Formats: sequence, structure tokens, C-alpha cells
Amino acid sequence: MNEQNKVAAEQRAREQALVDKVVASFETARDQRLKQVTQALTRHLHAFLREVRLTEAEWASAIEFLTAAGHITDDKRQEFILLSDVLGASMQTIAINNEAYANATEATVLGPFFVEGSPEIPLGGDISFSAAGQPCWVEGTVTDTDGKPVPGARMEVWEADEDGFYDVQYDDDRTAARGHLFNDESGDYRFWAITPTPYPIPHDGPVGALLAAVGRSPMRASHLHFDVRAEGKRTLITHIFVRGDELLSSDAVFGVKDSLIHDFVEHPAGTPTPDGRDLGGRSWSSVRFDIVLAPADTAGPGMAAYERNGA
Amino acid sequence: MNEQNKVAAEQRAREQALVDKVVASFETARDQRLKQVTQALTRHLHAFLREVRLTEAEWASAIEFLTAAGHITDDKRQEFILLSDVLGASMQTIAINNEAYANATEATVLGPFFVEGSPEIPLGGDISFSAAGQPCWVEGTVTDTDGKPVPGARMEVWEADEDGFYDVQYDDDRTAARGHLFNDESGDYRFWAITPTPYPIPHDGPVGALLAAVGRSPMRASHLHFDVRAEGKRTLITHIFVRGDELLSSDAVFGVKDSLIHDFVEHPAGTPTPDGRDLGGRSWSSVRFDIVLAPADTAGPGMAAYERNGA
Ligand SMILES: [Fe+2]
Ligand SMILES: [Fe+2]
Repeated sequence: MNEQNKVAAEQRAREQALVDKVVASFETARDQRLKQVTQALTRHLHAFLREVRLTEAEWASAIEFLTAAGHITDDKRQEFILLSDVLGASMQTIAINNEAYANATEATVLGPFFVEGSPEIPLGGDISFSAAGQPCWVEGTVTDTDGKPVPGARMEVWEADEDGFYDVQYDDDRTAARGHLFNDESGDYRFWAITPTPYPIPHDGPVGALLAAVGRSPMRASHLHFDVRAEGKRTLITHIFVRGDELLSSDAVFGVKDSLIHDFVEHPAGTPTPDGRDLGGRSWSSVRFDIVLAPADTAGPGMAAYERNGA
Repeated sequence: MNEQNKVAAEQRAREQALVDKVVASFETARDQRLKQVTQALTRHLHAFLREVRLTEAEWASAIEFLTAAGHITDDKRQEFILLSDVLGASMQTIAINNEAYANATEATVLGPFFVEGSPEIPLGGDISFSAAGQPCWVEGTVTDTDGKPVPGARMEVWEADEDGFYDVQYDDDRTAARGHLFNDESGDYRFWAITPTPYPIPHDGPVGALLAAVGRSPMRASHLHFDVRAEGKRTLITHIFVRGDELLSSDAVFGVKDSLIHDFVEHPAGTPTPDGRDLGGRSWSSVRFDIVLAPADTAGPGMAAYERNGA
């Protein structure tokens, strides 16, 4: 339904003249990229306003929505990333900047819960740091797209606990269910984590209210986050998902890709662990995730800048 | 320059599939208007991302920008309105919802400095409340589009002082250079204000940084704000501008319309005032602003809702 069809020619001309005036105001930008982005933003924003014939009440609601998002955002809660996520804008930006390359592992959303300065764990160590959840053994090999091992990869891993919360969502200062490690000379890595479980994105703010208003679930499919970086390779920010999870088809942030769904094998209590660790009679799971890194020079235009900024 | 032309067909299909998936996610909305707006927002937002090939670093900058805008916003500072203003989105929303009607006075931006609960002044009273500036006599008649007087109109008026600041921009709790009054039985009104002077929109925040980065001035052409409401009439939110102001062609928020430019007549010190007021030997100015209100039922779809919300 395009309401713009009903708009008289004179009115349409008046609206277009305003768009042209705003676009022209950015002509003074000396940075050509900034000029391009601001002019395109202006065109698309105005096209949206004009297509839906946004009302003044709706405009005021949008201002209120953004204000509430700003006020709930702090160093641990990032409502604007959540907004970008639920609109698929995060996933689209990732798609644009991480074009498929040969058999390289696919990327997905960063999410709002990455934090700098996670603890380093040794190979075979445990990132859970007492986070509640079933122990999960994660192992694999990091290679390039020719299958050659990539040693010295820095692997950052983070996830929610079985109650559905990341450490930063608790009021205390805990660090749990996150850590980083380096793989070995053969490209192999292994560590203990906890079996991923589904969780809602934080939905007590304006983004949650939006999802509720449109009848969408805030639930994310179970996943474990990875950020893998190695010299000369395209940085990989991704998750692995759990095959069989019923939320795979309705992930709140559109993060699921078929190639990222893995078998998490369940092991009954008492099954010997790969490293001989005594789990005190608990059951555990295991997953193999072989990671294929694309060459750095295949990155989209953004990736280089992204890494320069240390983001 | 459309970078999307360079994008391979397979990649393009992948990006479009994501857009379709996000659009489909809003199908569950029971409110048809919310469904229409969120789906259109999704389409235009993704079209923007894809056209400019937004980099991940730029995405991160956008998140930072919105976060900073949220954090500088409080009950007196509204960075999101400023953002909407400098992108012309406020003015476009006004254009959409206030289609030209006969000889009705044109609308312009509300701006971020309207506040509820201004003092009431009598006809002929003074809204300046000691705000610094040259006294300015403002008078006119409120009529309908047939020229018939509209009595009982509530007129809200506000402006910056000669130092370029609205009362709410000061650290103290002053109320100055704002007030409301009602016109008389003949539709006439008159009051003292101060002669409008140019001022920059608040530019010590992210919006100011954006303007600086693209070489745009934060200055607004000199103006006096009006909000005029009367039974059965379309609410008019507008300004009057000062003829001869050199900023008329480069107003930071695209608020100027030719019909809103008025002659502010300068009167040397000692010139008798219209109401006999003794200005203590100061010069003063005067302006006539006849206001023509359109019928309420000519409002765009938004205005009714806007007034329902009391916004
Ligand atoms: Fe997550
Ligand atoms: Fe203003």
C-alpha cells in the first residue's frame, strides 16, 4: 500500500524540493564518503517518511522511542545494537562486508554482549568460570581455505548461562562464560564451555516493547559466540547454533545460517571426558567446529577500517 | 554513485533474501499501521545499507552516534529532535501533515525548545520576563481562510534571547522569552516579545559534530515560534522570520518558507510605543503577523492523533 500515490502533484513537488535542499546541504562535505553516506541517508529517510505519510504523532513516538533507547543504554546495555539487530540491519551489514568466499566459515551478528578484556584461558581450559550450565567440550581446527592449518589464531568466545543471561547482565561484577585462547601449532583448539541454551534478548526496554507490539518473540536460538583473528586472515565474527533447536527458524536477530548449525552430542553422566576431567557425575556435551578463515584481502571495504579502529 | 551495481548477483540475492525475511517477521503485527510502518522502515533502511555498502566501522560509528545522542538528551536537551531537524526529517513530516490549504498560514518545525506549562500573559503583556533583547511589539489578527475572525485562539510563543539561548538552556530554572495568551473577541492579539536574533542549534553534541564534519553551519535564521490552537481549526505550529536576515537561505533545519518572512520595523529610541509603554529610552521593533487557520478537517492524518496525545 503506497499512500504516496494519493498525494497531489503540487504537494509531491514541494516534498521533493525539500529532499533536494537537504541533499544539497551536504555538498560541502570534504570527506567524499561522508557526503555519499549522508546524502543517501537523507534520500532513503525521506522516501520512508513520504511513503508511509508518517504522522506527527508517529514522529513524536519515534523521538520518544530513540530517547528511551538512549536512556536505557549504558556500558553494559546497548539498546541501539538490539534495535539494529531486530531490524536485521546488523545482519545486513555483516552480509555486505563478509561476502561468501570459497569454503570460509560464515559470519553472523556480534550481538550486544561482547566486552573487551575477557580472561585468557589455556588450551583445554574452561571459559565458564562457574556460570551455570551443562559442561560442553568444544574443539576444532582453524585452517585457511586450502585446508592449511592456521596456528596462532586468537579466539574469543562468549555465551549466556543456562538462565539466559550474560555475565554483564548481572548486577555484580562477575566475569563468566567468556574468555579467549590461542590455538596450537597444528591449528587445533579445545576448551570447556557450557552447552548453549536459548535466551531472550533484553526485552524490558523500547526494543522489547516494539517486538511485543508486532507479535515477535525476543528469543534467540541457542548459540556460542566466536571472534577469531589471525595474521593475514579476514576476522571472523560468528556463532555456532545447536542442531534441533526449535528456535532456529525464528531467531529474533536473523542470525542463523545453515552452515553454522552444529551437532552438539549429549554424553550421559559418567562418560569419560576427552581430557580426563572429572565432572563430578554430571552429563556433558561436545561439539566440533572446524573454522575456515578467508584471506584478509577478501574482506569487504569495511573490515579493514573496523580492525584499524580496534573495534 | 551506486556501489550496489558492483555487487554480484548471488550476493545481491542473499541480501534481498534477508530483507524479505525481516519484512516477513512483521507480518504478525495485529496493528495494520504498525505493520506498514515497520515493514517500510525495514525496506528503506536495508536499501540505504546496501546502496552505500555501509562498512562495519561505519555501523559501529552510527551506534556510537545514537548512544551519544541518547546520553546528551534529557528533559531540556533533545538531540534526537535536532538530528531529525538537520536531516530535514522534521520539516518533511510537517510538509506531509500540513498540506497547503487555500491561504492558510504555513507551518514549520516545532524545534526542541518548546516546553509545557509556559506562563499566561494578558493581551498586550510581555513574554520576555527579563530575557535580554530589544523589545519587539507583535500584533495581528487570527482569522479563518474566509477572513472571518477566530476569537479564543490560544497562542503559545517562544524564542531565544539575544545571546542565542532559550531559557531551558541556562543552568538556573528561569522561565523567560516564552508565554501564552488568548486573542480577543475580534480575533486580534498583541504582546511584547524581543526582536528575534540568530542562534546556533546546540552544537556541542553529536549532531553538532556531524554538521562540523560536513561543513554545515549550526545557525538558525532569526525567528519567533508560534503554536496557535482554536476550536475546529487545524493547529498551526510555525515561526516568523525576519526579512533581510542573511541566514534565511542557510537555516540549519530547513525551516524557512517565503510566506513566513516578515518585516520587523525598527523604531529609534524615544519613538512612542503602541500601548504607551515607557521603554526607558531604548529602541524597539514591531511586526504584524496575521494568522490564517485552516479548518481542522483539512489536517493530514497525523494531526488528529497528535492532538489526541496532547503532544
Ligand atoms: Fe548471544
Ligand atoms: Fe527556535
